[in-house]
Amino acid sequence: MTRNELIHNWMIDHQWKLIGMLKTMVQEPSTQMNEAGIQYLTKKWLQELDFEVDMWEPRGEELVKHEAFISARESFVGSPNVVGVKKGKGNGHSIVLNGHIDVVPEGDLTNWEEDPYSGTYKDGKIYGRGSTDMKGGNAAMLFALKALKDLDLSMKGDIIFHSVIEEESGGAGTLAAILKGYTGDAAIIPEPTKMKIFPKQQGSMWFRLYVKGASAHGGTPYEGVNAIEKAQTVLIALKELERVRNNRITDPLFSKVPIPIPINVGVIEGGDWPSSVPDLVKIEGRCGISPDETVEAAKEEFREWVKKLGEKDDWFQKHPVKLEWFGARWFPGSIETDHPLMSLLTSNFEKVMGKTPEVEAAPWGTDGGLLTAVGNTPSIVFGPGITNLAHYANEYIEVEKVLQCAEIIANTVYEWCNREKEGREWS
Amino acid sequence: MTRNELIHNWMIDHQWKLIGMLKTMVQEPSTQMNEAGIQYLTKKWLQELDFEVDMWEPRGEELVKHEAFISARESFVGSPNVVGVKKGKGNGHSIVLNGHIDVVPEGDLTNWEEDPYSGTYKDGKIYGRGSTDMKGGNAAMLFALKALKDLDLSMKGDIIFHSVIEEESGGAGTLAAILKGYTGDAAIIPEPTKMKIFPKQQGSMWFRLYVKGASAHGGTPYEGVNAIEKAQTVLIALKELERVRNNRITDPLFSKVPIPIPINVGVIEGGDWPSSVPDLVKIEGRCGISPDETVEAAKEEFREWVKKLGEKDDWFQKHPVKLEWFGARWFPGSIETDHPLMSLLTSNFEKVMGKTPEVEAAPWGTDGGLLTAVGNTPSIVFGPGITNLAHYANEYIEVEKVLQCAEIIANTVYEWCNREKEGREWS
Repeated sequence: MTRNELIHNWMIDHQWKLIGMLKTMVQEPSTQMNEAGIQYLTKKWLQELDFEVDMWEPRGEELVKHEAFISARESFVGSPNVVGVKKGKGNGHSIVLNGHIDVVPEGDLTNWEEDPYSGTYKDGKIYGRGSTDMKGGNAAMLFALKALKDLDLSMKGDIIFHSVIEEESGGAGTLAAILKGYTGDAAIIPEPTKMKIFPKQQGSMWFRLYVKGASAHGGTPYEGVNAIEKAQTVLIALKELERVRNNRITDPLFSKVPIPIPINVGVIEGGDWPSSVPDLVKIEGRCGISPDETVEAAKEEFREWVKKLGEKDDWFQKHPVKLEWFGARWFPGSIETDHPLMSLLTSNFEKVMGKTPEVEAAPWGTDGGLLTAVGNTPSIVFGPGITNLAHYANEYIEVEKVLQCAEIIANTVYEWCNREKEGREWS
Repeated sequence: MTRNELIHNWMIDHQWKLIGMLKTMVQEPSTQMNEAGIQYLTKKWLQELDFEVDMWEPRGEELVKHEAFISARESFVGSPNVVGVKKGKGNGHSIVLNGHIDVVPEGDLTNWEEDPYSGTYKDGKIYGRGSTDMKGGNAAMLFALKALKDLDLSMKGDIIFHSVIEEESGGAGTLAAILKGYTGDAAIIPEPTKMKIFPKQQGSMWFRLYVKGASAHGGTPYEGVNAIEKAQTVLIALKELERVRNNRITDPLFSKVPIPIPINVGVIEGGDWPSSVPDLVKIEGRCGISPDETVEAAKEEFREWVKKLGEKDDWFQKHPVKLEWFGARWFPGSIETDHPLMSLLTSNFEKVMGKTPEVEAAPWGTDGGLLTAVGNTPSIVFGPGITNLAHYANEYIEVEKVLQCAEIIANTVYEWCNREKEGREWS
């Protein structure tokens, strides 16, 4: 039997074990601050796979003062990160397998047909919060590693397994792992892509704009300046900026995406009395960042665009729109489409799935942005979950997809890590 | 001496008494729920002027179920209305002298240079909350009546003096007085017009609109419908409705007013997450009502306009913008510009002030709307206060203006009430 066949058969033989593992993972309600339980399990599983495990609660100046650090908290007591390292025999390529262990809150319970942490198995699916985003992906990685171990398939390069906290809140977990030196030659992140391969990921940043007006009585509005009306001019300018930014994007990976890097206005708030002319409007939104630009360049263009409002409008010249960056920010992530890890992943996908994979750019950011921008580790996002189910009630994962993903990852990791460095780093 | 000279001299002789009365009135902090003190004083003053006084706390089904009733409360215990009636000798015209006794809260105390209820007299001005809006006006009326009594000038028609609560909160005090039958052939309301004569008053009503969208992730906004973007279409439609409604207004009283009946958008609120496509926007505002239309007609036109959004826009057809009327509503008020009370007031203004009065339409509503629409009592708004000081810190009233206003009102009331009915109601 070939190695591919061996791995395939191993997967088939162990699928009931996978169901058990998925159940266990989902039954750990690892929302923010509640990650410890699943992390202890992950540590145990990694140790069983002969990984050297580092489990720590991220903290410290280097982390919280880092320009890429975003979090509502500065201490992560009770929320450990887990990284396992399995050293290779030498001269191979290293790989980072990155998965976040935090899940978003379950939301309105009345929308759930069953307990959000039931881990119920039904019709080939495991149900529950985090099943798709992204415990199914983490299980696929762990299962891939277990197959490699059980089949005695050894690697020349190192495997670095990240089980991180805080992805849903800005990526402090992956950043902490990077700052501890847990990077590699390339990374795979099995976020829910519905088995599509995403070599590029849109980044994003949140903005806040304050648009000023001048109050007056609503019976004599011409004595004031209505900030809600002025805000319309700002919204039109943002649409125009979105058009300009997206017109520049010619990467074929985005060819199926109507607006590759959208500017989404998510919140508007202004005025406090129907009979008064409002003197302030707040606008909050999310600006997409192209994988081909830096966060700084995107910010600069945005800033200049807002400034330009004053050139066309006397009011804005005297009362400039105020711009703030706040809250979340995800770095765009990318890997060259002809990167050898892309070729290996694609060819293993074809072998396992019997068809060509869909290769696209991701419309949302992942920790791959941090790995790329801060960790110098080009990243591919590819996973078994279903994008549209993430963050919604009645989230589920298809066990078969996890199994297929595990098989693809096992073969890819084996081939990548045994690719010799030939004396120099691949770049 | 002529009667005009007698009244003029009486005013000059009694100006220090007026200052004392103004001080006393301002020192009563008659915010909502705290009107009783000043009402007891008003009752006493009216009784000294030989008025039959009715003091009562408004209540009852007829009031609170009345279509014109607007108030946050249904009982006015502790907030008495006062109406004084002085019967004439017969066959004259009756007059309502209407003033509200409630004042708006003092707001941020740090904006006041002195205690808001100090009643300080300085440089010919009395300072304090309510001085301009409208205790100065009430004092002018009481002083006019006192002059008439002291000078033994008697009337054929009745004088009905309203000292009402709740004007600042929807007019329940005046409505209660009307429902008790305290109406007349015409009314004068000395709200702060800066001595301008307002034969017409803009009415207004508050509206609330809900604009729907469809949520989606901010990275893929094209999968949703942004309610903030849809709200822009609604705002544009409101501007257009404002234009259409104001183009119809040809009354020369509005000739100096840029937008006679504005549609003011005062509040906007939508979305709750920068990275999500918002699915709901709330818009609140105030729609001016022309003195030449009914509230119902204005509502109907507004409603139809909102409905028409669906004709041009598929989204609005499937997800109609929801319209609500809420909170405040002021009836428009008016009197014919060639009404004999207008002629009397104008000619007495000219005699006292030595110049032609400015005659305009008021950009805001008063209880004159209720008197006109519900009480069948055409109303003129004319008073000594300064419009722009109302509701602001460091509000004041000029004593000289109160004195001049009292002199004008005394002569006007005398002439109007002694105008014979000649067997039929003037109309």
